[in-house]
Amino acid sequence: MRLYLAGPDVFLPDPQARAAALKAICARHGFIGVSPLDPLAGEPEAWTVMPEALRIARRNEAHIASCDALVANLTPFRGPSADAGTVFELGFMRALGRPVYGWSNDPTPFALRTRAFAGVSGDHDADGMQIEDFGLADNLMIEGAIHASGGTLTQIASAHAERWTDLAAFTACIAAIRLG
Amino acid sequence: MRLYLAGPDVFLPDPQARAAALKAICARHGFIGVSPLDPLAGEPEAWTVMPEALRIARRNEAHIASCDALVANLTPFRGPSADAGTVFELGFMRALGRPVYGWSNDPTPFALRTRAFAGVSGDHDADGMQIEDFGLADNLMIEGAIHASGGTLTQIASAHAERWTDLAAFTACIAAIRLG
Repeated sequence: MRLYLAGPDVFLPDPQARAAALKAICARHGFIGVSPLDPLAGEPEAWTVMPEALRIARRNEAHIASCDALVANLTPFRGPSADAGTVFELGFMRALGRPVYGWSNDPTPFALRTRAFAGVSGDHDADGMQIEDFGLADNLMIEGAIHASGGTLTQIASAHAERWTDLAAFTACIAAIRLG
Repeated sequence: MRLYLAGPDVFLPDPQARAAALKAICARHGFIGVSPLDPLAGEPEAWTVMPEALRIARRNEAHIASCDALVANLTPFRGPSADAGTVFELGFMRALGRPVYGWSNDPTPFALRTRAFAGVSGDHDADGMQIEDFGLADNLMIEGAIHASGGTLTQIASAHAERWTDLAAFTACIAAIRLG
């Protein structure tokens, strides 16, 4: 079973070492971890002339489509929500009808994170935009997809300084995956 | 042709009035605008017992699947990137193989927005995480999907106080859509 490993982990100082660490944990549980950094077997010749960013996007879409499930690092990234690329990929896999799993090193409820970010205590930010408050971990499309797909969400608090490296929640998430 | 209208517009103080305004612009260009707030015809009886947030997520997925294309409000929302729910929905529609369009009231490049958010001038934030800099409008999965699907991205600068209400970029985006 192949698991696509979505997450802002690709922005870490040594993203290849990080991908190897994630894959090693997958392997211990009998899964093949697929990283956004992996080369794509049989990549179309036409893509070689594309701008690099667009080529990476196509490659990642192809990697996701080649996997049996997706595992997303939903630790809040530069704002109250998960990384935008990660959330895109989670939506992509959900539309393919396969299970999507999430893990996060910050179990603070989304509404509390959003209020802290916006510097407000009520139900609206300074622009008058409503603060979503369903007691969920992030925007409802994310947790809704995990639930509807049969996946799970694993949240374990890390020390703030270790929230991009701690692998406890990821390890627990992978250990709980039952596919096939 | 039905267009799913993704965006944080649902968080505006009067989201139904906003949806009506977006739909009116769609209608002027011969499209049916579908809002996340719309009731779902034939919604499964089983969903009525679901928690409201999960039911909204399922309903929005069904709305997207019922549309011919998706139009996303990508104006940066509570951080350097677009709203997480909007990005999820864009990924979902992209995986269905239909065109995805984007519009934004802030044409500042993603890398500049991210550096301003992180308070840095280089290529990494205070956590050592890389700042994506491909000259794009947001994370590469977003613009990659728009490009690969045959959609367009429309960016027109609004006054900061009007970035959640100005409809110039939305109107230009809808006017440029050619489906069929």
